[in-house]
Amino acid sequence: MSERKRKFWGWGWEGEGLNPDELKLLEPVWAKRLGVSQFEVTAPPQAAEIELRPSRISIPSTLAGVCTTDHFERLAHSYGRSFPDSVRIFQRDFSNPPDVIAFPRVEQDIVDVLDWCENAGAAAVPFGGGSSVVGGVEPPGSGFYQATVSIDLRNLNQVIEIDPVSEAARIQAGTYGPSLEAQLKPSGLTLRHFPQSFEFSTLGGWIATRSGGHFATLHTHIDELVESLRVVTPRGIVETRRLPGDGAGPSADRLFIGSEGIFGIITEAWMRLRKRPGFRAAASVTFADFYKAGDAVRVISQSGLYPANCRLLDAQEAGFAGAGDGQHAVLVLAFESADHPIDGWMNRALEICGDHGGEWDRSALEKPDSHREGAAGAWRNAFLRACYLRENLVPRGVISDTFETAITWERFADFHSNVKDEVHQVISEVTGNRAWVTCRFTHVYPDGPAPYFTFVSMGDKKRLLDQFHTIKQAASEALIRHGGTITHHHAVGRMHRPQYDLQRPELFADALRAAKREFDPKWMLNPGVLIDR
Amino acid sequence: MSERKRKFWGWGWEGEGLNPDELKLLEPVWAKRLGVSQFEVTAPPQAAEIELRPSRISIPSTLAGVCTTDHFERLAHSYGRSFPDSVRIFQRDFSNPPDVIAFPRVEQDIVDVLDWCENAGAAAVPFGGGSSVVGGVEPPGSGFYQATVSIDLRNLNQVIEIDPVSEAARIQAGTYGPSLEAQLKPSGLTLRHFPQSFEFSTLGGWIATRSGGHFATLHTHIDELVESLRVVTPRGIVETRRLPGDGAGPSADRLFIGSEGIFGIITEAWMRLRKRPGFRAAASVTFADFYKAGDAVRVISQSGLYPANCRLLDAQEAGFAGAGDGQHAVLVLAFESADHPIDGWMNRALEICGDHGGEWDRSALEKPDSHREGAAGAWRNAFLRACYLRENLVPRGVISDTFETAITWERFADFHSNVKDEVHQVISEVTGNRAWVTCRFTHVYPDGPAPYFTFVSMGDKKRLLDQFHTIKQAASEALIRHGGTITHHHAVGRMHRPQYDLQRPELFADALRAAKREFDPKWMLNPGVLIDR
Repeated sequence: MSERKRKFWGWGWEGEGLNPDELKLLEPVWAKRLGVSQFEVTAPPQAAEIELRPSRISIPSTLAGVCTTDHFERLAHSYGRSFPDSVRIFQRDFSNPPDVIAFPRVEQDIVDVLDWCENAGAAAVPFGGGSSVVGGVEPPGSGFYQATVSIDLRNLNQVIEIDPVSEAARIQAGTYGPSLEAQLKPSGLTLRHFPQSFEFSTLGGWIATRSGGHFATLHTHIDELVESLRVVTPRGIVETRRLPGDGAGPSADRLFIGSEGIFGIITEAWMRLRKRPGFRAAASVTFADFYKAGDAVRVISQSGLYPANCRLLDAQEAGFAGAGDGQHAVLVLAFESADHPIDGWMNRALEICGDHGGEWDRSALEKPDSHREGAAGAWRNAFLRACYLRENLVPRGVISDTFETAITWERFADFHSNVKDEVHQVISEVTGNRAWVTCRFTHVYPDGPAPYFTFVSMGDKKRLLDQFHTIKQAASEALIRHGGTITHHHAVGRMHRPQYDLQRPELFADALRAAKREFDPKWMLNPGVLIDR
Repeated sequence: MSERKRKFWGWGWEGEGLNPDELKLLEPVWAKRLGVSQFEVTAPPQAAEIELRPSRISIPSTLAGVCTTDHFERLAHSYGRSFPDSVRIFQRDFSNPPDVIAFPRVEQDIVDVLDWCENAGAAAVPFGGGSSVVGGVEPPGSGFYQATVSIDLRNLNQVIEIDPVSEAARIQAGTYGPSLEAQLKPSGLTLRHFPQSFEFSTLGGWIATRSGGHFATLHTHIDELVESLRVVTPRGIVETRRLPGDGAGPSADRLFIGSEGIFGIITEAWMRLRKRPGFRAAASVTFADFYKAGDAVRVISQSGLYPANCRLLDAQEAGFAGAGDGQHAVLVLAFESADHPIDGWMNRALEICGDHGGEWDRSALEKPDSHREGAAGAWRNAFLRACYLRENLVPRGVISDTFETAITWERFADFHSNVKDEVHQVISEVTGNRAWVTCRFTHVYPDGPAPYFTFVSMGDKKRLLDQFHTIKQAASEALIRHGGTITHHHAVGRMHRPQYDLQRPELFADALRAAKREFDPKWMLNPGVLIDR
């Protein structure tokens, strides 16, 4: 990392974010949507104004080059980037910071830091980009641990080896998205995994949390892109064999993918790549009815066409993103290929849309950069800028968050309307203000979509955390009660634990606990996530 | 099941197999290939001539309707269908039969049988179609267990529920391939999973062993087709939630998929289906050079075209199958779709073949039934009849078996030539006779193929088992030493254990053992498979 510093209180680099001109345009839009005349804005905290609890643990001299108790780093590793994280940050509540931050430079440093944590009775929390929105990287709250050591993988940031024949690369887990793609670029290959957090999240974080990426269909989860893994556990190193496919017993990789740091720290992975696409086509299709649009998406998802993008925005969400008129649902549809023109694919997908009442601008299809223009382009820009909204909405007292799930098609319409209505109801009750609950599909499968809900309402700054928790709990319970998953790609962390515990079979939790005792007998890795002791 | 009986000594139904006319045609071909003038043929055993060890366990009266010690059933559940199984069958060696066969009719029967096994100190071996070629269904050899109960799932054979919207069905685990497809047929949907054992293997068996199916690319393993599972373990029932996708912790399904019966008995699963394809195209492309053909397959596998079939046969294998002239490698290429014509896909794939020196008969492409004709048709018939060869070759003293693996593309050429040469060498040494080692790809991935080797040589009937084990061990060791997997879709069973133990990380085995203790604390389910106590 260069001398640039990451904000400890918000998204991205210090000095970056929404600029005053952008805010001047956005504030009246927000005010109008939320039904308020103006906002009172809390200033972001300064590092110097926060007093931290002294570190409860001493760094051994052998780890002096790897570990720090630096004030800024402790601030920056106190929270992820969830809504309640942001509220507590603006409230200047840094009451449970990590005691030490480790920056391992090589794998052996991780082994040494874990050894030290075991002996010192410290919790060890793996830290990638810190973009968790589910409380996945914060120190445990209980008094069981003597201290917390946050292990930041940022120095393990190299693409070590590229195999251009098999289209795969061995990549260190601390590599951030942009650096990963930049290192791959000369080879003409790409991982093409672009979660919304792409700029400030890491390969290891994606694998540990089963991140969802660029492709709306087919290979959506990072799971499918992992060819093999290397993991440092307190009991030793686990390394799986590089294989394109295999049927030898239960998949070892799949036990670590999604393990959220409780078994070990992923240090590197062989990842499946692909050639950079040279053929592209994008279109945005409008529908008068969201469920009719959903039917079109279902048929496309079952067609074997596998569009790269197939994201359906409901009318309000499309309107807010500048991708629609606010009256029509918008389907952002795109195909890409490194091998062949995809006109045939796109034409058939549009034909399906037409069969379901979809309309699109035929002239936009002709343009070579159509995926960066029109509704598709507007949506793309909104998607990338959205990460900066939180640090501007929270200080204005606005409650704004997302929750996501997956559900089979035959239950989708009821599920969607029930969840949306229930969450809308609870927000109205909690805030007493106008509430918006919108929905889009982030990913779609032949057997169902992954709906992603956004909610916005004007909160009460003095009760923001309580208000949020009431809403979040209602939303999470609705997902589970109506048959969905508590998370499609945001992970479980500490925030989704109550509903995850309902979702996963209890005997499977016993098996996870049993595996945990093998890998991490002192139970020190990321406590509180997924399972309890 | 009707009054038809399965052969206890070979493949399929009693009275079915290669008929005398077929044998009259085949015998001279075999003799010529193996360099012998004629064969001495051992007759298959008759049930009446085998004396079995008396059952070492008494069936409790409560299970009298579910369990049997019937002589024929004990014979029929003594072995799978591997080469050494067949040798022992023709040697009339049934020295370690299961003591009792259970035929549960409902899930509660399985719970009751497992309870009984626990109390009686009996090993419980789940039995689907019994087509294991890796020793996956035989009683454990050691004296640790008082007896062995083989639990045959054949009565759990219903498609319980079809969801035509999400294209999925809830199917009982004991359903055989043909019955499964017949029950789905009225809905227009299909699982389209056709392992070579299709006729005599079950859904539960496919899931427990990570079976590989019809599609040569994309969704090849049964793993991808499982939407959710229900498993009876000795500790209770595990049921996962029906979801199209999910990112909530490590996948519970993936722990049971490939678990080969050591954690519990899969009783039903929601499976992902698709519409029956109406659009098809098939072609066979010949190549003068196997590795050049491999390059074409690699480019196709990385193209995003996803052919349904893309099976490359080396020149000898193609010749033996009647699919080629014995001088050229043959690529059997096919596309299928329920949604759209696939000419564009096929044309691009053939263009890639042409770029690599492939040649094909353009006129064959025009025919609607091209996938049932020509080289493709010949290969298809040979594939389906191959299961009946073993029971005719073993009694003639012919050593003939297959082994399969997967390897990344950049290592493929060396891997293939090393493995082939080493195995050829050891067969020649062991038998002193002419040896054939041929290869095809059964499945291909963007990062590598799944090569499938067949070997044939004339053995010595008196030493057939020893000869086979020496060859099998050399082949298995070669796969591991040169970087492949011990199995791509045949599973581990008892036969592949030594090399599986080398392949999988030891700490992962510890985790499997720990999970086993949770699900099966008395360690009675399918002992000897995957892990030891």
